[in-house]
Amino acid sequence: MRYYAKPLNNLISQLSKLPGIGGKTAQRLAFHILSMDEKDAIAIADAIIEGKRSMKYCSVCGNLTDQDPCGICSDKTRDQRVVCVVENARDVAAMERMREFNGLYHVLHGSISPMEGIGPEDINLKSLILRLQESEIDEVILATNPNIEGEATAMYIARLIKPSGIKATRIAHGIPVGGDLEYTDEITLSKAIEGRREL
Amino acid sequence: MRYYAKPLNNLISQLSKLPGIGGKTAQRLAFHILSMDEKDAIAIADAIIEGKRSMKYCSVCGNLTDQDPCGICSDKTRDQRVVCVVENARDVAAMERMREFNGLYHVLHGSISPMEGIGPEDINLKSLILRLQESEIDEVILATNPNIEGEATAMYIARLIKPSGIKATRIAHGIPVGGDLEYTDEITLSKAIEGRREL
Repeated sequence: MRYYAKPLNNLISQLSKLPGIGGKTAQRLAFHILSMDEKDAIAIADAIIEGKRSMKYCSVCGNLTDQDPCGICSDKTRDQRVVCVVENARDVAAMERMREFNGLYHVLHGSISPMEGIGPEDINLKSLILRLQESEIDEVILATNPNIEGEATAMYIARLIKPSGIKATRIAHGIPVGGDLEYTDEITLSKAIEGRREL
Repeated sequence: MRYYAKPLNNLISQLSKLPGIGGKTAQRLAFHILSMDEKDAIAIADAIIEGKRSMKYCSVCGNLTDQDPCGICSDKTRDQRVVCVVENARDVAAMERMREFNGLYHVLHGSISPMEGIGPEDINLKSLILRLQESEIDEVILATNPNIEGEATAMYIARLIKPSGIKATRIAHGIPVGGDLEYTDEITLSKAIEGRREL
């Protein structure tokens, strides 16, 4: 016995393929979509199709973009001598929200993780090396995540570019602004002491 | 400064229109959709369009269906003399999952709620009255939700059909199976006592 008509069942099963959307949530979303104006529901579907069709990776930096090279790579007012290396496109957005970094990016699409069988050749690293050889870059800021994989990736890239003489820097680890010393874990605290600066 | 390209921004804003999907979740879903196979992403969009286009309300019972009358209304093996009145199409699915009810349904699409300005004429009630006049129905089971609005709606319908001599019954309130007396609220407990049956 099927409880819902086929198109509704299909909509529920399609929605439940999305991450974090279980059966119950998919059901609720499906009923909501069916109760929306046709125009609004079609707008969601169109946004998926349009997004999927027009978004691609920038051939220079690997960021998600609808034009190639992306808006950041083709913006000549930005500092062309500094490249910030991040793990994914969401990190680019986080950096841009900060409004303080005016250089370029390079998106790795992952990090080196021997545990998951992801080696240096599986991430967008070759194009970074090529980029460093072809353009005049002074500094590479390694802004991979502060976890084991991110650290390993940063170390690997730093060693790789050392012979070229380009400066490789790593973003600072420490206590987040507004954080509390009392509740800070030991590793973060030791990083904060290690990275202390003279006032 | 826009952090994401336009199609991605549009996809995020469309997804965040869905209930329970905030900005961060919409972002995560959008990135997931962009990383899916084109075929799979298009399947989601198609399911939305297809669902929205082909699903409608059954002209007899008001249930969501892709054919009219719906599969339940046109199933002649079901008991045509019992109609279960529920608030929405999800309740029909809940009843069907039980696999014990073999009668027909009537979906109200809401409940009477003076607080929200929803009166008897705003829910799918007129068609129920017409149905009771036109077909031979012995019993109407009022399975609206056990809250103030649901109770009021059940009372209202019961009074409305009383003159016709059709039996109006209300689903039982009490302690859920597997529940705990100790943690049951007073109103439910009083309903459970009130509805006690001889063994």
